[in-house]
Amino acid sequence: MNIKESFTKWIYETQDRICTALEDTDGKARFREDEWKREEGGGGRSRIIENGEIFEKGGVNVSTVHGELPELIRKRFEVDKGWFYACGISLVLHPQSPMIPTVHANYRYFELYDEEGGDPVDAWFGGGADLTPYYLFEEDVRHFHQTCKAVCDQHHPELYPKFKESCDRYFYNEHRGESRGTGGIFFDYLRAKEECNLAFWYTLATRCGDAFLSSYLPIVERRKTEPWGEPERYFQELRRGRYVEFNLIHDRGTLFGLKTGGRIESILMSLPPRVRWDYNVKHDPASREAKLLEVLRSPRNWVD
Amino acid sequence: MNIKESFTKWIYETQDRICTALEDTDGKARFREDEWKREEGGGGRSRIIENGEIFEKGGVNVSTVHGELPELIRKRFEVDKGWFYACGISLVLHPQSPMIPTVHANYRYFELYDEEGGDPVDAWFGGGADLTPYYLFEEDVRHFHQTCKAVCDQHHPELYPKFKESCDRYFYNEHRGESRGTGGIFFDYLRAKEECNLAFWYTLATRCGDAFLSSYLPIVERRKTEPWGEPERYFQELRRGRYVEFNLIHDRGTLFGLKTGGRIESILMSLPPRVRWDYNVKHDPASREAKLLEVLRSPRNWVD
Repeated sequence: MNIKESFTKWIYETQDRICTALEDTDGKARFREDEWKREEGGGGRSRIIENGEIFEKGGVNVSTVHGELPELIRKRFEVDKGWFYACGISLVLHPQSPMIPTVHANYRYFELYDEEGGDPVDAWFGGGADLTPYYLFEEDVRHFHQTCKAVCDQHHPELYPKFKESCDRYFYNEHRGESRGTGGIFFDYLRAKEECNLAFWYTLATRCGDAFLSSYLPIVERRKTEPWGEPERYFQELRRGRYVEFNLIHDRGTLFGLKTGGRIESILMSLPPRVRWDYNVKHDPASREAKLLEVLRSPRNWVD
Repeated sequence: MNIKESFTKWIYETQDRICTALEDTDGKARFREDEWKREEGGGGRSRIIENGEIFEKGGVNVSTVHGELPELIRKRFEVDKGWFYACGISLVLHPQSPMIPTVHANYRYFELYDEEGGDPVDAWFGGGADLTPYYLFEEDVRHFHQTCKAVCDQHHPELYPKFKESCDRYFYNEHRGESRGTGGIFFDYLRAKEECNLAFWYTLATRCGDAFLSSYLPIVERRKTEPWGEPERYFQELRRGRYVEFNLIHDRGTLFGLKTGGRIESILMSLPPRVRWDYNVKHDPASREAKLLEVLRSPRNWVD
């Protein structure tokens, strides 16, 4: 198997493995599956969980799409014509409890061709994982970052700091002057270059994906019995509003999907289920809510 | 007074008049006011109503801003340097009851200068009003359109059909293949041209604004006692999600405000208070919900 075939196989297997583990953790809800086809080539398998004991809404989607380059990508890469193959796994989980963070992860591979059926003229990996807490438990954030860092460090010590910084830069609500969450790792356009061939990035991306459950489930286990009430729920719904703002205004992935004819319901499954926008809400500077905002306004280093 | 001064005076007076009438209609909540200054010149007066008997959330904002052209406008008009004056009134009302439509209206005036303090080298009016029902009462939509048409017809018979079509084209969620609502009127770049000088457009814009209350309040009065329950509320919250999608993904006004350093809380007061995104919700083809969607997918003519 070449890298394309291996990665495609990996995303499907990883979807199965992650969904099974999430169902076990939830204990009540099950994923439902929708297979869909893309008119111009390829398709995907969306799996959605709703109204669970733990997960209010979540999706673990895979897609493998191919064909002629959509206009938007042709413009971006300044080519007149071309073909592509893109595949990836993408997940977002919105827990019921405001004490459990929302999490997002995505790993993808892209090949570009000059002619249909030809050898790739360009190829790269992209992806990452990031955490969006509503109430800040520093040990949770440290655990998440530590897990990401451990995987990256197996490959090269410079990767985690670089990917951590990219993540802070990417998941940023410019118009609010706030990060979407407490970050994680983010990378894109990881191409074969010098000592790092595509197999090197393949191993990195799949290992990051393989570490997803161990980065997140211990946090869920720790926080699922944490008490909360209406005020915490209220704050969670307000903060989910910021999540929506990021995804619809800034997220290149979402906008790209919408503009290249991706499946709307699969793309927008990332949006939280119940959301609020109230006018100009302020928090007591000594409150837990203000403490979260402080961290979102000046991103920290979570591991040494 | 010149046009700039008259229109500026009009937007403040209109804000007062509309807010007073809306408070009377609501009977419970009052507008609270925030004055704000723009660092680079000008500012605004935001008025917000929340948790009313009728209005769950709404805002009636005026702003008058001026100074050097922000980069984004310089790019758009392909000029290296320039000054501007812009003022307008903008309102959005999100009623509690799913039987009462959301409404939006906005009237604005823009002047462009080559040099600070010089005479305008370009000037135009923009604006419009549109209705977003959750449950369709055709007579309400007809009343709204009829009111807009009557004002436009006083000026020229070709205006309403043109503005109605622009409205359908503008308030369109491309990625959903759906209109945001049942439309109304929309116009932009109304410049002095042949027999229509700026005073002509000034009169049109202010008359449209003056007709706002009579286009909307009769609908509120008719529908405020209409019964509704959880299923209707659920559908309203889902549809509000589409409103958010439009405003954050497509609305030039919102994105322009966010990217040119407008006041975030005033711009995003347009977002509804409680919103839902559930996965791939389907409606019985014979239901009232499906009937609304049908109208949003193929815009109709509401008046002869």
